[in-house]
Amino acid sequence: MAQRRVGLWMIGACGGVSATTALGLAALTRGLTPTTGLVTALPRLAALDLDEPAAFVVGGHDVRQATLLSAVRELHRRSNVFDERTISACAPDLEAWSANVRPGVSFRPNAALAALADRPDVRAVPSPKAAVELVQRDLRAFQQAHKLDQLVVVNAASTEPPFEPGPECDAADRLAAALEKSTTALPTSTLYAYAAIDAGFPYVNLTPSRGASLPAIEGLARARGVPLAGQDLKTGETLLKSVLAPMFARRNLRVHSWVGHNILGNRDGQVLNDPENKASKVRSKDALLAELLGYRPQSLVSIEYVESLDDWKTAWDHVHFEGFLGTKMTLQFTWQGCDSLLAAPLVLDVARLSLLAQRRGESGTMGHLACFFKSPVGVTEHDFGKQFEMLELYAGG
Amino acid sequence: MAQRRVGLWMIGACGGVSATTALGLAALTRGLTPTTGLVTALPRLAALDLDEPAAFVVGGHDVRQATLLSAVRELHRRSNVFDERTISACAPDLEAWSANVRPGVSFRPNAALAALADRPDVRAVPSPKAAVELVQRDLRAFQQAHKLDQLVVVNAASTEPPFEPGPECDAADRLAAALEKSTTALPTSTLYAYAAIDAGFPYVNLTPSRGASLPAIEGLARARGVPLAGQDLKTGETLLKSVLAPMFARRNLRVHSWVGHNILGNRDGQVLNDPENKASKVRSKDALLAELLGYRPQSLVSIEYVESLDDWKTAWDHVHFEGFLGTKMTLQFTWQGCDSLLAAPLVLDVARLSLLAQRRGESGTMGHLACFFKSPVGVTEHDFGKQFEMLELYAGG
Amino acid sequence: MAQRRVGLWMIGACGGVSATTALGLAALTRGLTPTTGLVTALPRLAALDLDEPAAFVVGGHDVRQATLLSAVRELHRRSNVFDERTISACAPDLEAWSANVRPGVSFRPNAALAALADRPDVRAVPSPKAAVELVQRDLRAFQQAHKLDQLVVVNAASTEPPFEPGPECDAADRLAAALEKSTTALPTSTLYAYAAIDAGFPYVNLTPSRGASLPAIEGLARARGVPLAGQDLKTGETLLKSVLAPMFARRNLRVHSWVGHNILGNRDGQVLNDPENKASKVRSKDALLAELLGYRPQSLVSIEYVESLDDWKTAWDHVHFEGFLGTKMTLQFTWQGCDSLLAAPLVLDVARLSLLAQRRGESGTMGHLACFFKSPVGVTEHDFGKQFEMLELYAGG
Amino acid sequence: MAQRRVGLWMIGACGGVSATTALGLAALTRGLTPTTGLVTALPRLAALDLDEPAAFVVGGHDVRQATLLSAVRELHRRSNVFDERTISACAPDLEAWSANVRPGVSFRPNAALAALADRPDVRAVPSPKAAVELVQRDLRAFQQAHKLDQLVVVNAASTEPPFEPGPECDAADRLAAALEKSTTALPTSTLYAYAAIDAGFPYVNLTPSRGASLPAIEGLARARGVPLAGQDLKTGETLLKSVLAPMFARRNLRVHSWVGHNILGNRDGQVLNDPENKASKVRSKDALLAELLGYRPQSLVSIEYVESLDDWKTAWDHVHFEGFLGTKMTLQFTWQGCDSLLAAPLVLDVARLSLLAQRRGESGTMGHLACFFKSPVGVTEHDFGKQFEMLELYAGG
Ligand SMILES: NC(=O)c1ccc[n+]([C@@H]2O[C@H](COP(=O)([O-])OP(=O)(O)OC[C@H]3O[C@@H](n4cnc5c(N)ncnc54)[C@H](O)[C@@H]3O)[C@@H](O)[C@H]2O)c1
Ligand SMILES: NC(=O)c1ccc[n+]([C@@H]2O[C@H](COP(=O)([O-])OP(=O)(O)OC[C@H]3O[C@@H](n4cnc5c(N)ncnc54)[C@H](O)[C@@H]3O)[C@@H](O)[C@H]2O)c1
Ligand SMILES: NC(=O)c1ccc[n+]([C@@H]2O[C@H](COP(=O)([O-])OP(=O)(O)OC[C@H]3O[C@@H](n4cnc5c(N)ncnc54)[C@H](O)[C@@H]3O)[C@@H](O)[C@H]2O)c1
Ligand SMILES: NC(=O)c1ccc[n+]([C@@H]2O[C@H](COP(=O)([O-])OP(=O)(O)OC[C@H]3O[C@@H](n4cnc5c(N)ncnc54)[C@H](O)[C@@H]3O)[C@@H](O)[C@H]2O)c1
Ligand code: NA
Ligand code: NA
Repeated sequence: MAQRRVGLWMIGACGGVSATTALGLAALTRGLTPTTGLVTALPRLAALDLDEPAAFVVGGHDVRQATLLSAVRELHRRSNVFDERTISACAPDLEAWSANVRPGVSFRPNAALAALADRPDVRAVPSPKAAVELVQRDLRAFQQAHKLDQLVVVNAASTEPPFEPGPECDAADRLAAALEKSTTALPTSTLYAYAAIDAGFPYVNLTPSRGASLPAIEGLARARGVPLAGQDLKTGETLLKSVLAPMFARRNLRVHSWVGHNILGNRDGQVLNDPENKASKVRSKDALLAELLGYRPQSLVSIEYVESLDDWKTAWDHVHFEGFLGTKMTLQFTWQGCDSLLAAPLVLDVARLSLLAQRRGESGTMGHLACFFKSPVGVTEHDFGKQFEMLELYAGG
Repeated sequence: MAQRRVGLWMIGACGGVSATTALGLAALTRGLTPTTGLVTALPRLAALDLDEPAAFVVGGHDVRQATLLSAVRELHRRSNVFDERTISACAPDLEAWSANVRPGVSFRPNAALAALADRPDVRAVPSPKAAVELVQRDLRAFQQAHKLDQLVVVNAASTEPPFEPGPECDAADRLAAALEKSTTALPTSTLYAYAAIDAGFPYVNLTPSRGASLPAIEGLARARGVPLAGQDLKTGETLLKSVLAPMFARRNLRVHSWVGHNILGNRDGQVLNDPENKASKVRSKDALLAELLGYRPQSLVSIEYVESLDDWKTAWDHVHFEGFLGTKMTLQFTWQGCDSLLAAPLVLDVARLSLLAQRRGESGTMGHLACFFKSPVGVTEHDFGKQFEMLELYAGG
Repeated sequence: MAQRRVGLWMIGACGGVSATTALGLAALTRGLTPTTGLVTALPRLAALDLDEPAAFVVGGHDVRQATLLSAVRELHRRSNVFDERTISACAPDLEAWSANVRPGVSFRPNAALAALADRPDVRAVPSPKAAVELVQRDLRAFQQAHKLDQLVVVNAASTEPPFEPGPECDAADRLAAALEKSTTALPTSTLYAYAAIDAGFPYVNLTPSRGASLPAIEGLARARGVPLAGQDLKTGETLLKSVLAPMFARRNLRVHSWVGHNILGNRDGQVLNDPENKASKVRSKDALLAELLGYRPQSLVSIEYVESLDDWKTAWDHVHFEGFLGTKMTLQFTWQGCDSLLAAPLVLDVARLSLLAQRRGESGTMGHLACFFKSPVGVTEHDFGKQFEMLELYAGG
Repeated sequence: MAQRRVGLWMIGACGGVSATTALGLAALTRGLTPTTGLVTALPRLAALDLDEPAAFVVGGHDVRQATLLSAVRELHRRSNVFDERTISACAPDLEAWSANVRPGVSFRPNAALAALADRPDVRAVPSPKAAVELVQRDLRAFQQAHKLDQLVVVNAASTEPPFEPGPECDAADRLAAALEKSTTALPTSTLYAYAAIDAGFPYVNLTPSRGASLPAIEGLARARGVPLAGQDLKTGETLLKSVLAPMFARRNLRVHSWVGHNILGNRDGQVLNDPENKASKVRSKDALLAELLGYRPQSLVSIEYVESLDDWKTAWDHVHFEGFLGTKMTLQFTWQGCDSLLAAPLVLDVARLSLLAQRRGESGTMGHLACFFKSPVGVTEHDFGKQFEMLELYAGG
């Protein structure tokens, strides 16, 4: 059988996560880097028929004037990641893929998001529907140009402010109707998701933006036979919460308070510095403790932009808990992780698993991907160990 | 049916762990404290027919001149745990139970251990066999005096130095033969274990001492129809390792080094300050990383005696790991736990579960107790989540 | 010469800091505790003729229904500080001194502060002037009743919101005039300060409230020949900043960012949980970096109320700095201090030093007390080492 | 006046500290890097007539087969410091200076040190005297070849084991006599120091090796009119101790225990992994607490080799102290510093200050350099602030 050719379309293609993903794909294909960080490279998932790195072509949307290569170089310079040799060797791939990056759409962005959009050809759209059509045209053109067997769309764009879904978000047909009206208040991320799924492409929301976590989108995915997943990759503090909170629960230790303080200095951090956009992230990080512990401890999460940290997100967590005979004790941890590098291999993981799911004929929410997300849509299990068992079951069963 | 009466016999009865266990039993019986910290109080174990706190009578061996109450008061004063009200209310129980504490045996202790034994009636024994008989006499007398339906023996004595088991430890009959000879070099903990099991009492080794983790002891337990468990309660740093290492493994993050630095100031710490005895503890803490990760990262564990900390064990762990594209990142944690308070509820847990196992007719190693131990005898699974599932299965299945 | 008798009048007398100060005075007088934590007990200050603990009588104002003893007991129970023996022995003193606590005045408090005032006899006042007179009447009555040679007034009341001083705060006579008008918007702390100083009593502001840091108050102090000091005792994170920032400066290491995250659970924390009141504290903590470093690094300070911590204030600081050849490095620290216990000995220190200053005939701002305060009024030196030298010079010179 | 030309001769020239120093000199000369990290670049030392970076020529001794450039590249690759652009631009200087590096002498090294010496031309010497003469020949040849006005010698070689100085170390003449005998047991570092000073070159010991901290060496320096300084650059944990311990002392807070745990992965760490050599370092780090506090708290210092950390030394310190009314509190810090980058600018500082001192006609121990050293020879003051004032006084006075 001929090797499959598949496309990875990234919304926010020139952002830190996307550019790192592209560099990683190129480096893996060229054998320049080990598969460290890739969950789908684990022996226990070996039975799955996943696409090799070499099978992928990269494209995407962005609203900023940047290329994959310039984004990689910026990360190298500012955050002191990657090495010169890998960048130089992969530069031709990054350059070629940058040609596939199209101007994004931005539907009524707030100020923080509008400030980013310095790409002159970002498209003004009269109605949500027009945005959807523009996106679909780009996706199909990409698929045809590169003769792709399949295409997966991932949202790695900047975090949007939270929004309260109205009744039009309850069912696919209502949403379709609402898209026609120029007055409809929908986040851009809903439009991207609608476009991809409606056109038959699996869709994964890597961000805390809530625009794809709607009954209407889920319904559309089932109707179109398309697999779907999200929301917000679980890369740092929340990952730790999802393994530590079950430990306290199993030992019957009572968590009184859990304080998490995050600082980071990349563009994502800059956008999150806007209180509106930050609200989405904090919400996404904070929900799981009550589910994991069975009660609601006092919990505080803060995220602050500290420029000098660049892509190195540092989290300090302070957990105050009570043991036997009323004794209060403390666990503190500090996590110093490079965000884009933690996220990128997971982007490849969920892309590969989505393409496989589509080939297997699965549609709707991919519950077995819960272990990848802070707020796994459609799954109430937040224990990372149990979430991972769901993936192993899928792989091995 | 009449209420069962059961005995909890603690070797090292006047130590921090044992005295706290006794205070906890009294406080639970009197309704003075919640069940926080007790695993067996979790709803998911509710189906098990476990003995209520009120069913327990406490006794034990020790070699020091101390009582349960004096040990509790010392912890209160030095480590600032417990409160005056609870101590006063439970003092009568502690006094009554102290009458059940008998002089321990100490077979060729090293200097650090010999230094502890200031109780004038500690018994000099001509042969291992004589020690076993003395212990059995004490256990049976306690059972009769208190009309106990069952009795469980736990070893909460000071950590012994490591020892290399000879061929006499390979089978129960060989061990029986060796006990007769006065020249036999066996740790005291082997003698206590032999005595308890041979007399038909379930036995749990809460310490890093290896004397009960022998094929001969396991064989004896099966022969006598007695349940058995150990070794070394998992209360702090190792507990965290057993939930964090699987997280790194599942995310395919490569751990380069894991450094753990423990400081503590209680009597256990003082004994561990002796390099010989420390070796047992370090060994017990260090084994699991290779099993959990599938490879052996550089790993360092140190334990140091810092007097001012008293019972507050503080651990600093530094985990250096590599993610995608060769990027090195760091997780650090600090654990500030009060050792006796972390251990005591688990003593009650394993005691209750051992008594139940005996009633159920189980014998030999209780694999379902693996989640309680740093080096669970007879179990290779070190993932705390999976170990806990074994317990849930036992409870719910 | 007969022993002097001196009074310590605390505004906020039943708060954590004040009650601990009172317990400490009683315990020192009875020889029940060492002088640890008392700066004025250091050998290098021995030349100063300071009042002995036994010389002090305690009184104060508060708006809550509480006594010194109840406040001490609450700290003992909730924050696990003090011991039963000390409390019992000192209870008679605390009871006696509680009789000297008078209802406070509260001039147009905001909601957070008004919520505290459950003492039924808190006095409604028609004008600022009336408040000042009430306070002065209480101070003089106390002095006469106890035949005090001297009396020092310290403000240990809840943090007020920041306020922007108007022109009436520029000079003592303008302030005097303004006090007459009922429409004047002045914080309560200005009224207390005015009352004390106008009546000839040294005054120290231990809080971040800005009401006593005004040219008008300073002018009044000089006019009345009264020594003055403030603002905000330097007990934790800021103390560390004032020794660490000079280290970075002297090594020419460039601090890019300094993030400080504070959590605490006492009543002060509860009041600070109100964003308005919090603003005063954050301001008070944040000013010194630019002065110490000579440039302004990115700096974030947050304070959050975490109930379970009670009086144990925990601060995590993350300092990101650049060394030679552009290399970024990190210092992090965690401070776990019990706030009232850190503050109380300093209250005694500044009280003793103020009484001495008055005897020496000094008036106006006591610059030599800068080392005690986060925002030392009238002093630009923030290097703790240099501030301390000012005190040593005063003592030894 | 013509520009001075000065030489910097580094023993251990191809080690991390030395190579970084050389790169820094080149980068400063070329204007490629700011003076961050250089104490002598501070405005408050501007009055001193110090040599500009461009005035320096670099040479040295080493026993390993390596060049300055290979050492720099290794640091870049393994420790992720420096950037490609700076290295390339400075490569010509590093290459030229490498030609000045001569084979070192190694007198009876222990196994750990002997293992390093893979340079084939390392010189076997029949007696200490012969070693001294070899070294002096190299120094003079370097001075002549480059027409240097002055030359300073710094020891940046691997840490030696501690040694107990015999009576021959008490006076310069006794030492001279001892050098003649082939049986004399002297550390290599004594020979280097003797050679440099005897030949009239200022000498600075940057290492914990004790070989230059001898009355005989001090006597020789005064006799030859040569300035001298050492021992062990104060770059990390000890620097922090020297600012934090005075803070505890000034607040009369009683430090019960101070635990410092250091991990590092460079060659220095590898040498220190040998228990013999480690002893020197631990001794050097541990002495100052008693001096600073006025009493001896329990203190533990450990240093461990953790390969993956490379040049990133990480220290965790736990300080347990008592405040008022017996309350125990905790300060913890984590220091993540890149060792060579912290040390290198200080090497330039002490070199510049030594050359100046010689020009000023000073000889013997330079007490005003105490702020640079962990164990400042001849100075009992360990308070960093006060040590720095000594330097300011020297500069400004
Ligand atoms: N890095 C992580 O560990 C991590 C983890 C979980 C989630 N996330 C989320 O992933 C997203 C990307 O993170 P990042 O660090 O790459 O951020 P980034 O700011 O570097 O990249 C986001 C990109 O999205 C682009 N963009 C913004 N609006 C767009 C639009 N309407 N259409 C097309 N492109 C648009 C921006 O121009 C930018 O290039 C964020 O939402 C972040 O919260 C990141
Ligand atoms: N506290 C924890 O969290 C924890 C966790 C795991 C394991 N452990 C282990 O539990 C054991 C007890 O810890 P602890 O903190 O109570 O120590 P401890 O020193 O307070 O108590 C040990 C007691 O054993 C007694 N003892 C010593 N030799 C004896 C002998 N031959 N016969 C009878 N009694 C003897 C001692 O006199 C002492 O009273 C230690 O081995 C420790 O390593 C403790
Ligand atoms: N504890 C520390 O380390 C520390 C350090 C620096 C500054 N401070 C400041 O000291 C002050 C006291 O702190 P605390 O922990 O004791 O707080 P607290 O809340 O325990 O005590 C404050 C007391 O002031 C009383 N009060 C409020 N308004 C009053 C009024 N108008 N008149 C009279 N009394 C009034 C309250 O009823 C309360 O009893 C706060 O402003 C705090 O920020 C504390
Ligand atoms: N880096 C720091 O922050 C720091 C701070 C204080 C002190 N120090 C000390 O500085 C010294 C150098 O540290 P480093 O990190 O550069 O170590 P390194 O191991 O990288 O360099 C030491 C060099 O000395 C050479 N050497 C060994 N024996 C020699 C001999 N007899 N003659 C000539 N050369 C010899 C080695 O070959 C090596 O190249 C160590 O003693 C270290 O403890 C370093
Ligand atoms: Na780099
Ligand atoms: Na207590």
